[in-house]
Amino acid sequence: MKEITIDKTGNKPLYLQVFLQIKNEILQGRMKANEKLPSIRQLAATLEVNNDTIVQAYKLLEQEELVLSHRGKGTYVKSSDKELKEGGRRENNIIWDFANASPHPETFQVEEFKKIINEILDRDRGDTFTYQASEGYYPLRESIAQYLKKLSIKSNIHEIHIISGAQQGIDIVTKGLLELGDVVIIERPSYPGARKAFEARGAKLIEIPMEADGMNMDDLEKAMKRYLPKFIYVLPNFHNPTGISYSLKKRKRLLELAEQHDSIIIEDDYLSDFHFGYKKRIPLKALDELDRVIYIKSFSKIFMPGFRLGFLISPREYERRIIDAKQSADLFTMGLVQRSFDLIFRRGFWRKQLIKMEEYYRKGFYETVEGIKKYIPKEISYTIPQGTLYFWLKLPPGYHSQALFYEAMKRGIAITPGKEFFLEHKNSSYFRITYGNLKTQDILPGLEELGRLLSEFLKDFHRKDMENTSLPYY
Amino acid sequence: MKEITIDKTGNKPLYLQVFLQIKNEILQGRMKANEKLPSIRQLAATLEVNNDTIVQAYKLLEQEELVLSHRGKGTYVKSSDKELKEGGRRENNIIWDFANASPHPETFQVEEFKKIINEILDRDRGDTFTYQASEGYYPLRESIAQYLKKLSIKSNIHEIHIISGAQQGIDIVTKGLLELGDVVIIERPSYPGARKAFEARGAKLIEIPMEADGMNMDDLEKAMKRYLPKFIYVLPNFHNPTGISYSLKKRKRLLELAEQHDSIIIEDDYLSDFHFGYKKRIPLKALDELDRVIYIKSFSKIFMPGFRLGFLISPREYERRIIDAKQSADLFTMGLVQRSFDLIFRRGFWRKQLIKMEEYYRKGFYETVEGIKKYIPKEISYTIPQGTLYFWLKLPPGYHSQALFYEAMKRGIAITPGKEFFLEHKNSSYFRITYGNLKTQDILPGLEELGRLLSEFLKDFHRKDMENTSLPYY
Repeated sequence: MKEITIDKTGNKPLYLQVFLQIKNEILQGRMKANEKLPSIRQLAATLEVNNDTIVQAYKLLEQEELVLSHRGKGTYVKSSDKELKEGGRRENNIIWDFANASPHPETFQVEEFKKIINEILDRDRGDTFTYQASEGYYPLRESIAQYLKKLSIKSNIHEIHIISGAQQGIDIVTKGLLELGDVVIIERPSYPGARKAFEARGAKLIEIPMEADGMNMDDLEKAMKRYLPKFIYVLPNFHNPTGISYSLKKRKRLLELAEQHDSIIIEDDYLSDFHFGYKKRIPLKALDELDRVIYIKSFSKIFMPGFRLGFLISPREYERRIIDAKQSADLFTMGLVQRSFDLIFRRGFWRKQLIKMEEYYRKGFYETVEGIKKYIPKEISYTIPQGTLYFWLKLPPGYHSQALFYEAMKRGIAITPGKEFFLEHKNSSYFRITYGNLKTQDILPGLEELGRLLSEFLKDFHRKDMENTSLPYY
Repeated sequence: MKEITIDKTGNKPLYLQVFLQIKNEILQGRMKANEKLPSIRQLAATLEVNNDTIVQAYKLLEQEELVLSHRGKGTYVKSSDKELKEGGRRENNIIWDFANASPHPETFQVEEFKKIINEILDRDRGDTFTYQASEGYYPLRESIAQYLKKLSIKSNIHEIHIISGAQQGIDIVTKGLLELGDVVIIERPSYPGARKAFEARGAKLIEIPMEADGMNMDDLEKAMKRYLPKFIYVLPNFHNPTGISYSLKKRKRLLELAEQHDSIIIEDDYLSDFHFGYKKRIPLKALDELDRVIYIKSFSKIFMPGFRLGFLISPREYERRIIDAKQSADLFTMGLVQRSFDLIFRRGFWRKQLIKMEEYYRKGFYETVEGIKKYIPKEISYTIPQGTLYFWLKLPPGYHSQALFYEAMKRGIAITPGKEFFLEHKNSSYFRITYGNLKTQDILPGLEELGRLLSEFLKDFHRKDMENTSLPYY
């Protein structure tokens, strides 16, 4: 094992520094299976830290199944390439993570948030931790109604429900409104988290292909006539995974079709606050004169993914069913989180964060566009979206992105293979990349490396062989 | 309106003080419908507080639909008895709340918790707010494994899943393991939150009557042979609502029957950490040699209900399905909450809280026992349980607790009518009382008032009339 060095002046916890360095040694193959780690006492003495620091670092290694600890004997490396084999994407063996779309922790305003939390605890004391209403903390719902005006959405407080993130929003809307066997129309491709929530409730899923300006509306109309879907689940702005935004014409047509066939549109919005320098995109909900849309909003990409909070707007007629579904799901969202977010809005901290994140994403977006144009081989087809976190690329016929994923992992590059986003979940020639979790200066070098890999992959990889291989890791 | 007085030295937020006093005026009928409230500026000046304080107080009144605000005209009382009519139990028109079992906010260790949260934010910075594993933060799962040893439960880390409270535990176990049409056996009476989660998933529910030492085992055996239930949902310690704890014999029989008929027992445990001076009660899970029990643990009654965290222990064979169900429910439980709770365990703060709460509950329990014996009329039947939060009382034949509930609300006393706890949800002669949310010194006077009410209710109330009345508020 190479020497471990720690930085006691920085912000990074000591145990994490130790953990990450040893993990890297193992994953790079510099520590071999069954090799013994230094004893806790010895390493603590060498680094002049507390025993606890080493204990915690070794526990994280154990958690990731990289080491085994034998009581009284010490701690041993378990394997050096386990993660790679499992196809897992964990942050620290990855040098360029084009799979993870969450904003980099550097963008999190931890100090500001800490002040807000302390202010709430001093202000509301024990009331912060009593049972809360399932529909949410009223002042926060009011702050959200204000914020919605900026997105051109009119709303009544009774239509706004606080949720513990967008995933829960999809889950409780499904629980509250969907009956077993109901049909749900989704885009092809579409976000897998939503699909899983619908499937868990026994929905029948129908995919409608995406085009450059949204779903194919003829196919949608036919499917609606035939299946009478309960829900149409869409991401009309900066669609995941393709990055597409719907044209105004298709937005209006979608609303018309929902009205004609008595369907509910579920709009999943995570980023329409941003323009990326193009014209402003308003949510579908802003056009929803006939109350056909349930709008679900996540704050994960604008604020921090670990702050479990979001909201949904539902037509008033479903109010009771959604409150009941939320109540039977987890009673209510933590009061401390709701009260803090209310203050974040009221103090204007939210507006500042929007400006900051738009700049962060805009830079990342244009770096990625530049890097793709410069480094991605011409055999790979793609369309540059009008600003988004996601880019959707396609390998030439016969090549599978699952094989590319595996090759990329060996070089420390993470991508998301396309099959995740399709219902049939088979091999796909598509793959998704995103710059969200990368520092701006790492995007171009990362894409250069990805481009190099793609060239080699296209040259060396025997596609015939590939088609007959059942991959062991998925 | 009578004069409002506020205490600027205390811990209670000023806006809450203003809100509560005006609310009380309205609910007591001292402010009538359409009466105008003082203007914000005027009241702020009188009380020498910020305008914002009054704005916030008025908003809470609006949230509770007690006042209406007309732009430019002012704020008006909406109605004086709306809440009473709706049968709602909200804390501030209630003088003696025997319905709410959550510990009084006075017992919350807000200062200690604030220190812990700040320590986590300083230690883990941005990492606190990244995506977390759906199964939970590893060090916390480890702390929980340690804690379980004290409850005589052996567990492997992979069996422990972190959840956002017990309600979510029931919901995701149901989502992950129950198929539509599966049978779930519940106690009669039983906790309604669980019933709703099973029903939402399309389960068929079968009730087995509770006896003084647990479910009737003959009835259970017959039902199990006939229905082959997927789950048996039980609260073996301090059952809600009856307060009963299962005998050792019935616990063992329950485990045997589950093994014979290949059923999963879901054990819901919220308070078995406490003895109340009787002999120690161990969870059913501690006897579970054959891995038949999914154990769900809430911290709401020991710590604070607003701290949305709990855990479950599941046999390893269900690990993947439970992680998937958690992931599609809300991705993961907030990292800040998990990391804080881990430190709460590691620092021994948890042990201190247990000692404190046991004392709080023990006092409350014995006060309640004394009050019931002293003040509750002899026509009311009940059994004193061996320590618990809940007491289950029964009116004489022909009297309905729903009518009692309505009469009690008029006097500022909240009880929980029995029908909530039964599947058929019809009128019932049972009602539940709990002292959890009362200060110890308020228990005896409250029970004296309840006793007085009961005497009058039994004397004056025409039971014949009652049976034919369809109550408007439920």
